Amino acid sequence: MKLLRYGMPGAEKPGALDAQGRIRDLSLLVPDLTPEWLSPERLRALAAIDLEKMPLVGGTPRFGVPISGVRQFVAIGLNYRKHAEESGLPIPTEPVVFTKALTSLSGADDDIVLPEGSEETDWEIELAFMIGTTARKVSRETALDYVAGYCLANDVSERNWQIKRNGQWGKGKSFDTFGPIGPWLVTADEIPDPQMLDMELSVNGAVKQRSNTADMIFSVTEIVSYLSQFMTLLPGDVVITGTPAGVGLGMKPPQFLKKGDVVSLRIDQLGSQTQRVV
Amino acid sequence: MKLLRYGMPGAEKPGALDAQGRIRDLSLLVPDLTPEWLSPERLRALAAIDLEKMPLVGGTPRFGVPISGVRQFVAIGLNYRKHAEESGLPIPTEPVVFTKALTSLSGADDDIVLPEGSEETDWEIELAFMIGTTARKVSRETALDYVAGYCLANDVSERNWQIKRNGQWGKGKSFDTFGPIGPWLVTADEIPDPQMLDMELSVNGAVKQRSNTADMIFSVTEIVSYLSQFMTLLPGDVVITGTPAGVGLGMKPPQFLKKGDVVSLRIDQLGSQTQRVV
Repeated sequence: MKLLRYGMPGAEKPGALDAQGRIRDLSLLVPDLTPEWLSPERLRALAAIDLEKMPLVGGTPRFGVPISGVRQFVAIGLNYRKHAEESGLPIPTEPVVFTKALTSLSGADDDIVLPEGSEETDWEIELAFMIGTTARKVSRETALDYVAGYCLANDVSERNWQIKRNGQWGKGKSFDTFGPIGPWLVTADEIPDPQMLDMELSVNGAVKQRSNTADMIFSVTEIVSYLSQFMTLLPGDVVITGTPAGVGLGMKPPQFLKKGDVVSLRIDQLGSQTQRVV
Repeated sequence: MKLLRYGMPGAEKPGALDAQGRIRDLSLLVPDLTPEWLSPERLRALAAIDLEKMPLVGGTPRFGVPISGVRQFVAIGLNYRKHAEESGLPIPTEPVVFTKALTSLSGADDDIVLPEGSEETDWEIELAFMIGTTARKVSRETALDYVAGYCLANDVSERNWQIKRNGQWGKGKSFDTFGPIGPWLVTADEIPDPQMLDMELSVNGAVKQRSNTADMIFSVTEIVSYLSQFMTLLPGDVVITGTPAGVGLGMKPPQFLKKGDVVSLRIDQLGSQTQRVV
């Protein structure tokens, strides 16, 4: 199932994509798609809805963040070998973990707002997953049972704030609009293996990043288990899993986003995003 | 006003401390103390309640986190000169920012649960503040207007996970029970100057940290303004402002918490905490 929220910022309604790729409104059955709707029981109940019988949504509405009320937004760094190399950093021996501000979350096709004076705002296509069940010290064997589904994400990053402003990466990752996610959450039953998805990001039509989640150093399974050793993961928590090579910082000379640029990204089965830089 | 939530974990009721230091129940007027109660208007309305006429709470109930529904838990690192020195790290030229998992928040006197196998769990007394009004790119001049109040906090830290497990400090700071906060939120009107508060932490009765918030490198004013440049701060967000010298890691040889230890801490006007290590 592909769960989504559509409409203007702050006034999104819950919906789902039908077999023909059209949006069906769910608001008569579901007040909003919140973390409690991500439990295995609730997801099974949602899957019982015959979407063909739900109201069709016309036009091309905006996509919001697929789940309302996300509580933690966790990110894994340097999780593709070639990206660690292009960043001039060692290949990690265990996952590098940082966080993005909740307030950086935005809709799949919302504009990216350049921070005032920023000359080093960069793109990072990433596979995101969402937690469905509270996870505490879970094994790798059971880790995927805690994942409700997957999304496409862009981990927009201001390299000056990330790297040159006294350590800890969250600073450059937390500006408003720096966390586009969606357009929809694809429930885990549709993605039995999250480690075989092609991914591609372009800027103004020129391909910058092209990879496959098979190249991740730490798999989704390993990440869930690892994170849950030192923190409790809650339903609705979003985890982004690192970006492959091809970010602007790694180019010679570096290339960064400027006003008017258009960023387009897609991951197999997870849909696509297009953001204008303003 | 000293706002608090009392009762068993997950079943806390809202309350306030009266002039005699006794707990008064607020639940007949306030369903729960949530972030929206921290706006200047709501705080003024709460201050209009004659606490002497509200029900007295008997016994010695547990204190929960003073506000329910905190969304972001942000921390400032190395914000006291001597602590940076004892950590063997340079004095920061701008605030070092990291985050703790929301799920690490716990009540003022709740037990600290040592992570399995941990041999390097450390204490860190800190001044915490809570945001009352959404803050986006605010100046230093107006920064304090966005602060609803102040609390005592212990930024419990597992040094092995923090330092030796591939970068970014959040890992060692995010275990369940690693964020005791409270016992109450003292509203900002009672603390006109947050940079003149004595603070002291003891382990098993022996003083380990003794300082004053006057020694902070970056003041509350500077921290609010700085954070709001790269992230939006939301009502209820908790920010802890760094710890002074005297942590276990800085001792020669290092001293860490072990089962049965008792950690006691206090900051002027903000009350005290006592935690057993289990």
